[in-house]
Amino acid sequence: MIRYFITFSYDGTNYCGWQIQPNALSVQEVLCGAISTILRDDIEVVGAGRTDSGVHAKQMIGHFDCENPIENIEHLISKLNSFLPKDIAVSQIQKVKNDAHARFDADSRMYEYYLITRKNVFLEKYAMRINYELDFEKMNKACKYLFDYKDFTSFSKLHTDVKTNNCEMKYAKWEKHEDKWVFRIEADRFLRNMVRAIVGTLIDVGKGKISIEQFKKIIEAKNRCKAGISVPAKGLYLVKVSYPKNILP
Amino acid sequence: MIRYFITFSYDGTNYCGWQIQPNALSVQEVLCGAISTILRDDIEVVGAGRTDSGVHAKQMIGHFDCENPIENIEHLISKLNSFLPKDIAVSQIQKVKNDAHARFDADSRMYEYYLITRKNVFLEKYAMRINYELDFEKMNKACKYLFDYKDFTSFSKLHTDVKTNNCEMKYAKWEKHEDKWVFRIEADRFLRNMVRAIVGTLIDVGKGKISIEQFKKIIEAKNRCKAGISVPAKGLYLVKVSYPKNILP
Repeated sequence: MIRYFITFSYDGTNYCGWQIQPNALSVQEVLCGAISTILRDDIEVVGAGRTDSGVHAKQMIGHFDCENPIENIEHLISKLNSFLPKDIAVSQIQKVKNDAHARFDADSRMYEYYLITRKNVFLEKYAMRINYELDFEKMNKACKYLFDYKDFTSFSKLHTDVKTNNCEMKYAKWEKHEDKWVFRIEADRFLRNMVRAIVGTLIDVGKGKISIEQFKKIIEAKNRCKAGISVPAKGLYLVKVSYPKNILP
Repeated sequence: MIRYFITFSYDGTNYCGWQIQPNALSVQEVLCGAISTILRDDIEVVGAGRTDSGVHAKQMIGHFDCENPIENIEHLISKLNSFLPKDIAVSQIQKVKNDAHARFDADSRMYEYYLITRKNVFLEKYAMRINYELDFEKMNKACKYLFDYKDFTSFSKLHTDVKTNNCEMKYAKWEKHEDKWVFRIEADRFLRNMVRAIVGTLIDVGKGKISIEQFKKIIEAKNRCKAGISVPAKGLYLVKVSYPKNILP
């Protein structure tokens, strides 16, 4: 068995998320189907993590195993991209150590959330539009508190099966990029719904609905009911999954 | 009569272009319909220029006349944006001199053309994808010849009704922006199909199909048959229309 990492992106609009589900179309199902068809084998791709329904990925990683080495990787990528629908694209496939694991070995994930403050014909499907003023400076001040804590229960979906709600925050900041505001956040791991709940709560700070101090108290409360609403999936992008260098053979 | 300039953008994918046509949906028809409905009057918007079927606009300008002054412009913009479909958005409406003309007074237009060199799920509908290598340095060298000439007959659509094929080139350059190559071009005016024919011919230079010297000869020939093919509309954006400052009242 030879293990490969595959790097790909998707427009999540028409999918129920990454993970295979019984009655809905997932990115995993379409991708596994394409690879299995082209390599004429039953191939399962294990993803670096789940993305929820409607969430996009600029860079997602998965691993899969082949009986025989892939002879021409560039050729396979090109065939996959022709076979796959327009909303899934493969950018890289590389041989990794046999025990490398796309999910367990990832040491950080980065997400972006796009906000637009006025109608934008090119971003309507890819960003959350708000029609009120936000104080992004204040929101960035609140962000700094994220680095002081590990337990993010307040921003997690209730009743999930994870053992711990601890995450190590590495980056969290709002920045203006041309016509949109981008919230970039990086951590070793994320709880389900965490980015969208943090964004929703930061919007409450930016609106003046809650203070920076209250944002801090919300984290400390470790109680999901205290935080703001979860913002729409269409504005969320998984943008990077990082691995230690020793993953390569 | 009070004259206003209206600034708007559109995703041209589903339109036959800017200009009203008998059997197809145009941006002009939809925009005039929206303004007429909201202002309860029969209002015609005169555009700064035509864009062809499938071409997008990040910033297009038009003018229209009202019997009475618009009381609350921000409110009108907001109403228009709610009324218009997702692919047309109004960003500004401002009072101008009564004789200001969106088309005749414009002193320059800027376009962008997007090229992608590999499958990109977010740009498939908004860029031309090529799967061969291009020498952008060489293409930029060829661009410089555009500034040495005025007559661009070689890059115009045959049999149009314009009186002259002279344009004054102000800017023309390929630049890498994240995942895409952007060709930005500005001139006082453009002939029909001109940007797409220039891009197609520059691609021939980048491919090595023709030399920089041949590109120069093509301009000099003043013959449309000498130039390269016209690239797809989906990668073309009108990005800016400029006016002299004395347009404002």
